[in-house]
Amino acid sequence: MNAGHEVIDRIAELGRHSESPDHYTRTYLTPAHQAAANQIAQWMREAGMSVRVDAIGSVIGRYEGSTEQTLLMGSHFDSVRNGGKYDGVLGILVPIACVAELHRRGERLPVAIEIAAFADEEGARFQTSFLASRAMVGRLEAAVLERRDGDGVTLADAMRSAGLDPAKVAPSRIDPSKLAAYLEVHIEQGPVLLNAGRPLGVVTSIAAGNRHLLKVIGEAGHAGTVPMAIRRDALTAAAEMVLAIEKRCSAGGSLVGTVGVLRVKDGTGNVIPGEVEFTVDIRAADGETQAAGARDALAACDAIAKRRGVKLERTMTHEVQAVPCAPWLQDEIARSIERQGIEAMRLPSGAGHDAMVLAEFTDAGMMFVRCGAGGVSHNPAETVSVEDAGLAVAALLDFLRHFRQDAPPRR
Amino acid sequence: MNAGHEVIDRIAELGRHSESPDHYTRTYLTPAHQAAANQIAQWMREAGMSVRVDAIGSVIGRYEGSTEQTLLMGSHFDSVRNGGKYDGVLGILVPIACVAELHRRGERLPVAIEIAAFADEEGARFQTSFLASRAMVGRLEAAVLERRDGDGVTLADAMRSAGLDPAKVAPSRIDPSKLAAYLEVHIEQGPVLLNAGRPLGVVTSIAAGNRHLLKVIGEAGHAGTVPMAIRRDALTAAAEMVLAIEKRCSAGGSLVGTVGVLRVKDGTGNVIPGEVEFTVDIRAADGETQAAGARDALAACDAIAKRRGVKLERTMTHEVQAVPCAPWLQDEIARSIERQGIEAMRLPSGAGHDAMVLAEFTDAGMMFVRCGAGGVSHNPAETVSVEDAGLAVAALLDFLRHFRQDAPPRR
Repeated sequence: MNAGHEVIDRIAELGRHSESPDHYTRTYLTPAHQAAANQIAQWMREAGMSVRVDAIGSVIGRYEGSTEQTLLMGSHFDSVRNGGKYDGVLGILVPIACVAELHRRGERLPVAIEIAAFADEEGARFQTSFLASRAMVGRLEAAVLERRDGDGVTLADAMRSAGLDPAKVAPSRIDPSKLAAYLEVHIEQGPVLLNAGRPLGVVTSIAAGNRHLLKVIGEAGHAGTVPMAIRRDALTAAAEMVLAIEKRCSAGGSLVGTVGVLRVKDGTGNVIPGEVEFTVDIRAADGETQAAGARDALAACDAIAKRRGVKLERTMTHEVQAVPCAPWLQDEIARSIERQGIEAMRLPSGAGHDAMVLAEFTDAGMMFVRCGAGGVSHNPAETVSVEDAGLAVAALLDFLRHFRQDAPPRR
Repeated sequence: MNAGHEVIDRIAELGRHSESPDHYTRTYLTPAHQAAANQIAQWMREAGMSVRVDAIGSVIGRYEGSTEQTLLMGSHFDSVRNGGKYDGVLGILVPIACVAELHRRGERLPVAIEIAAFADEEGARFQTSFLASRAMVGRLEAAVLERRDGDGVTLADAMRSAGLDPAKVAPSRIDPSKLAAYLEVHIEQGPVLLNAGRPLGVVTSIAAGNRHLLKVIGEAGHAGTVPMAIRRDALTAAAEMVLAIEKRCSAGGSLVGTVGVLRVKDGTGNVIPGEVEFTVDIRAADGETQAAGARDALAACDAIAKRRGVKLERTMTHEVQAVPCAPWLQDEIARSIERQGIEAMRLPSGAGHDAMVLAEFTDAGMMFVRCGAGGVSHNPAETVSVEDAGLAVAALLDFLRHFRQDAPPRR
């Protein structure tokens, strides 16, 4: 359990590098973010790794192996605003703890190990997503560099102020042909492992999802004078749609559907709502389940609008494809977990991760670590236990010691 | 139809006395409001009435009869913000047109006629309700005079600036023993007469109602990672409550229920709502129907909260008792309408009116005039046709000519 203590202590130490003393917020290239990068680089060096900082500011530690093939691991060290300290950082510190152990014992693997501490995944400062992993594989659109933060500073200027050269982002991408695989350890950010009583899980796929904006247009009226039978209330129509979405997405499996925002335009206590706008977020582990769920849920909304005589306008605002984790990596991760004497639960990831980006270039796998406190995440209450962190280090070390670069079918 | 043209022309003329050139807003004691008062006083004098302004600023015209007993008619000449030009004013101008006709022909009734142009009913400036009619009958709490408008001006200071003396409000109330009855003509503010194809209606009662604020407390979570089966989504719970209220209040009769405001606290597209607040407004023509509807609807909300494992907090924020219109006045109004060759439809009023205040002191009746444009009110689209205004004048004149002070059972 010493390794678990060390990981959790380091998470607490890294958590102090925050933009506010009151909560944990660390966005791209702020002083707190750069202090965290320096701390991570130091721990990598102490674990026997050579360290470089790439063009976007990610910190990459390398532990040589007996070939040039590289097993890449990693996760991000930025955070959402007022987030949890484990999100991302756990997937940097668990691999560092493993390499430190290999280094201590003088062990080398048939592949080199690289640990990428991605500088920005959440994108809270510039409203980006997967910024650093996309930069690493050469998938960053140049236009993103012109995005501005809340103070009007462009991403490119923020990079220059931090000593980074935006012009080097494109040419400095890595050569994916050298990658043996990508593995990401991450806090689950949900309650599935917690409720099942399992400390570790194997991710089967990262969810497909889309988001929609729906606007219901009915007819406003005086709450006291318009009989129920002739109303065209936009809110009761929207309420029926919310329940239809919930019902369809509760059909089982990995499908989930959420209405997170709902606004009544000019809402007043004694006025029948004339217009309501709401968001719909629908995800599933595989694209087919997601597409069927979204199609049915939205068709139900259309039918409700028609029956109630209200107008429904809808727009898809966001869409991601499902990313399956490589089956051979799932099996290797599962075996390593089972060798710790615990059952390897398989589950999809409803949240997005850098693994989605790397999966375009190499086989990707993910290990989830149980999320405490009811499974809350993106929240100061987010937590991982010392015991679970220790098990994650033990399972990952076992995975590394069994990893063979020529084992799997490779792309 | 000349009388109808005159009424509608005068409504247009009065509508020009607005606080904004772009929309119709006339709140208590603003320059537009005082200009409207002067215009109304002039029309009253032209109709052969003596005119006084009471302590609160209402304009009261008197046309003497053969006894001291007084039939009071009236409505208000203030408006909501961005309201409709017919609301209130119609109930001043239709009676003035009738008295003008009596005056032209030299007719006197067995009772005196008074027409009260109430200075404030909507209360848009000082957040009051029925200010002027309550002042007239001595039911205004002194504390109301200390209310402040959006600029911090107290009601008492606004009165002084307009040449009114707040100290005179209490002593200048009328003597209700002289009242034979109160009659109010008003635009319906709903679509019941319109949908039934009837120009005029007889109000049976003014609705009882109460308002509630409900807060649903569930558990926030990541929209991608929390399985549907273990969610405690405050919004889906609230949606089910909204539909339960709609269903119970659609049971028939005069019952209506409205959720006009619904807010998702910290709503974000990819977060399961943790807290939702909404208002409930439930009304019915009689207190028993209202009470049963409210009780059942709120009990349904409690049951939904319990079943879904969310917390429900609720508070009653407002309550008014039903005010029945005097049956003999209903019958007299109905006969006068029928003598115009049209069916006298009886209907409750879902909106509140000055008649609710006067009904505490004398028998009260109301005649509704059909609301055009789909029945919208408190809205610039609000309208009454020339023909319907003419029928209202004809029916009211008929009512006045048949009015006998000793006909009804009196209080």
